[in-house]
Amino acid sequence: MSDKDIERLINYLSKLPGLGPRSARRATLHLLKRRENIMEPLILAMQTAADNVKPCNVCGNLDSINPCKICVNRERDQSIICVVEDVSDLWALERTHSFKGYYHVLGGLLSALDGIGPDDLNIERLVTRAASPEAKEIILAMSATVDGQTTAHFVVDCLNSYNVKITRLAHGVPVGGELDYLDDGTLSAALKSRSSL
Amino acid sequence: MSDKDIERLINYLSKLPGLGPRSARRATLHLLKRRENIMEPLILAMQTAADNVKPCNVCGNLDSINPCKICVNRERDQSIICVVEDVSDLWALERTHSFKGYYHVLGGLLSALDGIGPDDLNIERLVTRAASPEAKEIILAMSATVDGQTTAHFVVDCLNSYNVKITRLAHGVPVGGELDYLDDGTLSAALKSRSSL
Repeated sequence: MSDKDIERLINYLSKLPGLGPRSARRATLHLLKRRENIMEPLILAMQTAADNVKPCNVCGNLDSINPCKICVNRERDQSIICVVEDVSDLWALERTHSFKGYYHVLGGLLSALDGIGPDDLNIERLVTRAASPEAKEIILAMSATVDGQTTAHFVVDCLNSYNVKITRLAHGVPVGGELDYLDDGTLSAALKSRSSL
Repeated sequence: MSDKDIERLINYLSKLPGLGPRSARRATLHLLKRRENIMEPLILAMQTAADNVKPCNVCGNLDSINPCKICVNRERDQSIICVVEDVSDLWALERTHSFKGYYHVLGGLLSALDGIGPDDLNIERLVTRAASPEAKEIILAMSATVDGQTTAHFVVDCLNSYNVKITRLAHGVPVGGELDYLDDGTLSAALKSRSSL
């Protein structure tokens, strides 16, 4: 089992999130045994994606055209920009089909621990976009974690001098969630932001 | 998030064992964000493995040379052949460094449910190898499942007319295992095959 080609493939596969050394070994065998059906198409798909997919110059989304399909879609609401941490958050919001504005991907969160400062994030371009006359509202859709909220505060400070409304996502009971299992912070936030029926 | 290149990559990655649609999406993003460090080397490693790694004509192991490194290693014990279901079992045995004979990969187990008969397995070549004058012992290292034991019985029938000793792996308490949590079958097998101290 000391074949270096196989070892190298296992090694690189085990660097993917969700795959450890053992599952990388299983995946490698799976690939080697299904060369035509899975391995060759996967290599092709990976090569195509590596060649074509680039970050969008406007919002930071990943797409095979630049600016991305969302940014060039003129049917979307130009007045709202939703700020997210990462492309995966943008994808999650798109899957809900409930937001029809534009996005802005920061590319991370401010973190003293990880040494990520404002210059490492895509904030400057957000300020430029917020300054344009079309922009009316900026929705801050960062995670409700310490880093997420620190970043949100920083972005609010950067945008304060511009004539845009700044909003954030609602905190509250997750749909389908049981009160019993909710943490105190969420529950008191849900109580405070209660709405009339 | 409707980019077809990204969707196609997610789709193929989700076909790997251990990756579902959600983790395939995470892996895709991970790849696209680490193009030079992970994606390009992974493509290269996959292409190299697809080009070079072939099943060994003698034992069925996967290797970049044919016959494989184990079969051409004359320092190993030519008198013992260990029969396993799959290449992953061969790898598992090799990791123990406790077997120094040769291997034979069947490529599956007999299974009436899955429609796998003797002709689908690499049994004919095993019989040829067992008939050679060097072969003295055949170890059956199939899983202790119904299909594994059915296959073992079938292989024993095929080899009965040849002058080789046929053995199987011991059943018993797994090293580090607690008696309390063992099933009755294993426990009674361990009791029956007890050894003197």
